[in-house]
Amino acid sequence: MEAVLEDLLTADASAGETTRPERLVEAMRYASLGGGKRLRPVLVLEAAALFGRTDDGAAVAGAALEFIHCYSLVHDDLPAMDDDDLRRGQPTVHKAFDEATAILAGDALLTLAFDVIADERVHADAAVRLRLSRELARAAGIGGMAGGQMLDLESEGRERSEAEIRTLQAMKTGALLRYACRAGAILADAREDDVERLTRFGEIIGLAFQLADDLLDVEATPEMTGKATGKDAEAGKATLVGLLGIEATRSEISRLLTEAQELLSPFGEKAQTLSALAAFIAHRNH
Amino acid sequence: MEAVLEDLLTADASAGETTRPERLVEAMRYASLGGGKRLRPVLVLEAAALFGRTDDGAAVAGAALEFIHCYSLVHDDLPAMDDDDLRRGQPTVHKAFDEATAILAGDALLTLAFDVIADERVHADAAVRLRLSRELARAAGIGGMAGGQMLDLESEGRERSEAEIRTLQAMKTGALLRYACRAGAILADAREDDVERLTRFGEIIGLAFQLADDLLDVEATPEMTGKATGKDAEAGKATLVGLLGIEATRSEISRLLTEAQELLSPFGEKAQTLSALAAFIAHRNH
Repeated sequence: MEAVLEDLLTADASAGETTRPERLVEAMRYASLGGGKRLRPVLVLEAAALFGRTDDGAAVAGAALEFIHCYSLVHDDLPAMDDDDLRRGQPTVHKAFDEATAILAGDALLTLAFDVIADERVHADAAVRLRLSRELARAAGIGGMAGGQMLDLESEGRERSEAEIRTLQAMKTGALLRYACRAGAILADAREDDVERLTRFGEIIGLAFQLADDLLDVEATPEMTGKATGKDAEAGKATLVGLLGIEATRSEISRLLTEAQELLSPFGEKAQTLSALAAFIAHRNH
Repeated sequence: MEAVLEDLLTADASAGETTRPERLVEAMRYASLGGGKRLRPVLVLEAAALFGRTDDGAAVAGAALEFIHCYSLVHDDLPAMDDDDLRRGQPTVHKAFDEATAILAGDALLTLAFDVIADERVHADAAVRLRLSRELARAAGIGGMAGGQMLDLESEGRERSEAEIRTLQAMKTGALLRYACRAGAILADAREDDVERLTRFGEIIGLAFQLADDLLDVEATPEMTGKATGKDAEAGKATLVGLLGIEATRSEISRLLTEAQELLSPFGEKAQTLSALAAFIAHRNH
């Protein structure tokens, strides 16, 4: 996965491009090659493998998704947004470079994703690549991730119902995880009912992911997560942990994990990595 | 054109979206429905009409391009970038809303463009829509518009050669104008040599556009342009007008206009609107 990301970011200017400014490439590399769990691309790879697709194409689609994820971190960290100085234990992009470069690096990563998802390696059929591209735009845009970040910013110091928080989280973090699982099935030519099954799996692990994240924000230290913690409470943001309590949150995570694993049962042994990923997401401590 | 933009921005959540947050929609509408010359969509429409395509499809593709243009204005106006308070005589998005909302509205407009360009109305063949989408990503991204803005920011207080300024301008403003003309030809199923002819036309009017813009920055008042002027000199930015002088710049604009109109000569009367647009771009005073 790292090699694919690295290749895409060090490529010379493509047809239709003039030149790739060095400082912007550096900031984009800093934003996307600095480690990270690569959870989204791995979900694409594993979902594709479930239906027998194991070549480079899934990694390229996963890279497009990772660029979207990385852009969102760069913009979310900006002073006008969550104002974070640390990410994965390192200075955030606007600290390591400057704010203008961080804004542009985010914009360029977001845009690059739509070049990458159109890559011939992703699927031989242009109609499938177009479907993946359009669904990616919807997962990442106003009715998905970007919209979720807007709702999250509006949550500061405001009461939110459980339903509102669930909507916000389904958009802010859920949409890309859902897309990852769905995209893997689509590019592997899975039947539509299997695409829907993987979509549901993605939604459930998205919920588990966010609950685990909220728990970490309450219970972990910055040393464990490599970023500031306790920020939700500090910002007066309502979370499900705050509404449900720690014990009920833990139970819900377990219930979701069981549901996710049941969805994979028809695939037997072939789904063991995907099942392990679901468990990792539910029980992670970093 | 306005109706198409309005429709796309007021649509309910599409398949794959959860909900579209009201404040974000408002900021996106503010950023894209506030007037503007609609130059890029009009170029798409006119280039398509040259090859007999006159239905809604070109307007939808033009809307995608306009969303990209509008996002770039929103982000370029941010305090960390060009720090502009006025745009088309109105408060910029971060002034009318706030910085976080402006960043997200830009992100969401950029992302929406890749949903819109995939719209079935743009072309019946998914492969053509995918080509338009991928070329849009390259025109707007690191090797195009976003990269050009990076080079422009790096120009402040630094000497630039004529070649460097031309590269910067070909990226920052040229890439989208080039794409507009090219996309119109592609979606109207023009032959590849005609696509290349329109591409060259787009490049030339891009050059003329930027030279006219530089002249305006030197000669116009904020009342004429609806935005701050004299900013290039104030920011210590090298421009071609600065290097070549006003008279030589005027001559080059005239020469470019002649070249642009010669490129259209094979189309005779059919190209009269496109030809008039080239003249408008070369001689505009706002």
